Amino acid sequence: MTIPDLIQKKRDGQEHSRDDLERLIGGYTAGSVPDYQVAAWLMAVYLRGMSARETADLTEVMAESGDLLDLSALPDTVDKHSTGGVGDKTSLVLAPMLAALGLTVAKMSGRGLAHTGGTIDKLESIPGWQDQLSEEAFLRQAREVGLALVGQSKNLAPADGLLYALRDVTATVDSVPLIASSIMSKKLAAGARTIVLDVKVGAGAFMKTLEDAEILARAMVDIGRHAGRQVRALLTDMETPLGHLAGNSLEVQEAIATLRGEGPEDLRDLCLALAEEALQAHGTGPDEARARAREVIENGAALGKLREFVAVQGGDPRFVDDPALLDVAPGRLEITAQQAGYLDEIDALAVGRAVLLLGGGREQKGEAIDHGVGVELPFKPGAAVQPGDVLARLYHREHGVEHAAQLLRAGLRVTPTRREPPPLVLGRVH
Amino acid sequence: MTIPDLIQKKRDGQEHSRDDLERLIGGYTAGSVPDYQVAAWLMAVYLRGMSARETADLTEVMAESGDLLDLSALPDTVDKHSTGGVGDKTSLVLAPMLAALGLTVAKMSGRGLAHTGGTIDKLESIPGWQDQLSEEAFLRQAREVGLALVGQSKNLAPADGLLYALRDVTATVDSVPLIASSIMSKKLAAGARTIVLDVKVGAGAFMKTLEDAEILARAMVDIGRHAGRQVRALLTDMETPLGHLAGNSLEVQEAIATLRGEGPEDLRDLCLALAEEALQAHGTGPDEARARAREVIENGAALGKLREFVAVQGGDPRFVDDPALLDVAPGRLEITAQQAGYLDEIDALAVGRAVLLLGGGREQKGEAIDHGVGVELPFKPGAAVQPGDVLARLYHREHGVEHAAQLLRAGLRVTPTRREPPPLVLGRVH
Repeated sequence: MTIPDLIQKKRDGQEHSRDDLERLIGGYTAGSVPDYQVAAWLMAVYLRGMSARETADLTEVMAESGDLLDLSALPDTVDKHSTGGVGDKTSLVLAPMLAALGLTVAKMSGRGLAHTGGTIDKLESIPGWQDQLSEEAFLRQAREVGLALVGQSKNLAPADGLLYALRDVTATVDSVPLIASSIMSKKLAAGARTIVLDVKVGAGAFMKTLEDAEILARAMVDIGRHAGRQVRALLTDMETPLGHLAGNSLEVQEAIATLRGEGPEDLRDLCLALAEEALQAHGTGPDEARARAREVIENGAALGKLREFVAVQGGDPRFVDDPALLDVAPGRLEITAQQAGYLDEIDALAVGRAVLLLGGGREQKGEAIDHGVGVELPFKPGAAVQPGDVLARLYHREHGVEHAAQLLRAGLRVTPTRREPPPLVLGRVH
Repeated sequence: MTIPDLIQKKRDGQEHSRDDLERLIGGYTAGSVPDYQVAAWLMAVYLRGMSARETADLTEVMAESGDLLDLSALPDTVDKHSTGGVGDKTSLVLAPMLAALGLTVAKMSGRGLAHTGGTIDKLESIPGWQDQLSEEAFLRQAREVGLALVGQSKNLAPADGLLYALRDVTATVDSVPLIASSIMSKKLAAGARTIVLDVKVGAGAFMKTLEDAEILARAMVDIGRHAGRQVRALLTDMETPLGHLAGNSLEVQEAIATLRGEGPEDLRDLCLALAEEALQAHGTGPDEARARAREVIENGAALGKLREFVAVQGGDPRFVDDPALLDVAPGRLEITAQQAGYLDEIDALAVGRAVLLLGGGREQKGEAIDHGVGVELPFKPGAAVQPGDVLARLYHREHGVEHAAQLLRAGLRVTPTRREPPPLVLGRVH
């Protein structure tokens, strides 16, 4: 079968064999199959779809296009992935919780791009913290501390990077098998036995409706099953940013507060729910999982793990003990309510864009960022507000502040009647 | 709208505006839109289709991507196109008939590729005949002789050449709007007011069924209507090669015989039917059209036009007067019937491939060919044959003869019961 024959097969709605996908994706990664053939194939996949078996095979072929991390010598390895959010500092809270619960988090994380942040950028707010470890040091630390977190290897599922760049310019991004295989190929290559997914739903997310999010979550759980991994997904609301703070140093402060039992309710509840899923995947019953997840926050064990993890990766642990020491930009600009009423949904995309404009994110890979800038949102949607109440506080160094404030003003609406905000956790798939 | 937005529009089944198509196809021809975006778009067109209006706009945009021949100063211009056949020397007979009927044939023709022949190659069998004329000489000759025929300009609908090459490697060839726009873009650019189409149906043709051929013919007639041209299509059988001879010199001999009233019935009938369509498109009633088409063969006017046309384009007219002078390869190999019975369908593709193997065609553009080789098929399908009857006679110069004979033997089947061959003209669309 030639490459056009393989494209024709998908064009006509037939199912690919694993060998077909190896020839297409392997050839593309090696440079022997040109991008125009893969582009035509991607459009055929977009319009014809893929079976669960086919999607799983595609994902494995993509995972095997680069390095495969072997975590099999480590006990109870858990990875976590979020489909992308604003103000989402969940990993900073969840990873030390899981380590304190006796599971092993040996994880690769990304940097932020456009309006979404990245865990590595957030951790780099802590002076001295390093995102690079040798594979040997990474595995040793995971075994000894239960938590090691590094920047994503360039050779992790390189087929995904190539396919994603091509999808981006050929109108083939929002296809369930292509999104699911893109996310899961990196998770499979990263080696953890259990994968907990936070699938965001809402205007600011890839998946606009609960129904679509369930379909995507189901596709990823199925890929895990075919690949011999345990995958559990929570479907969570993403109309509004998580917690009260967005921006790198600010989010580290909020994460530490949450590990001290003082954080915002939505962030705390999401981290507890994800920790419970991880424990249940490892055989703990629901009630015990709930109790144990709460316990590691209440007894300070999770916070202790964060301190240990920061220190072993070169960071200064005093910033964990006293997060007020973290560099926060000195400029302030407050956006206040003009009338009495109730705060409506906060536009997460507007908040993400505002942080980007202040210098806290990057438009292009490799750009330097300002860890100290960000946005504080004192009220959550549904709250009653009075004229003069501060709806948003910008932490800035002059750069981009006018444009950011303009975006936030448009994204913060006060309405005369109260709309009940949706619950945070909208569903579970496993 | 960005290019991905335009791809998305077709992906989602929406209709393109003319401006959309100008941006996509104009950008591709200019090199500013890369092939991978056009490849994704072609697959979306393949799977989503195009409306008649959209197909007509695409065709005009493709036609306008290069030179447009202005034939508006010439009276009653007619062009003819066949969707590709084996042993199809129709243009050699029809063009002088139309000129003798008072219409103007100012036509560009192609060269053969793979198993199909080309009119220019056939005419080059006549010593001295030249396929290159200045535009001025071409128009003057069309006016004075009523017939001028040149090789296709490189800059005729260049978008079609680019799109065709991309379709060929992305499994997007057999799509009605893409086939119709490909054919018609060159016909629109070539400028004739009336276009007569011979749409082949059968195993050896693009369109395998009468239904598919009707859909394609309808699409091309609709394109013509949108572009202010008269288009008439015959749907004709293409299971079996036309006439008894395939190969360049041999086909010229058969065409001249037909113009003398001595040719094979199928070729003669097809040329009469096409000439009648052209006359009717110019307002002649059906009965008069039929009578006049016959007349120009019977009174020698069409043959006279061929002689005049050959001479004015540098060819030696003695070869028209005495076609036996044309160079025919001296080698002979005969394939004979092994048993008594009836000749089944002749595999047109096998005959085309045999001529190619003997050296009478080219695999790659630009290759030299041997005009003297070819295949004679003394019997037509349905004929009763006896053991020893010659079913095929190869005219060769040793080259490729064994392989060609092998293909022909497989393509010529004698069966104990007679199958009625299909009629030549299967339908009409206008």
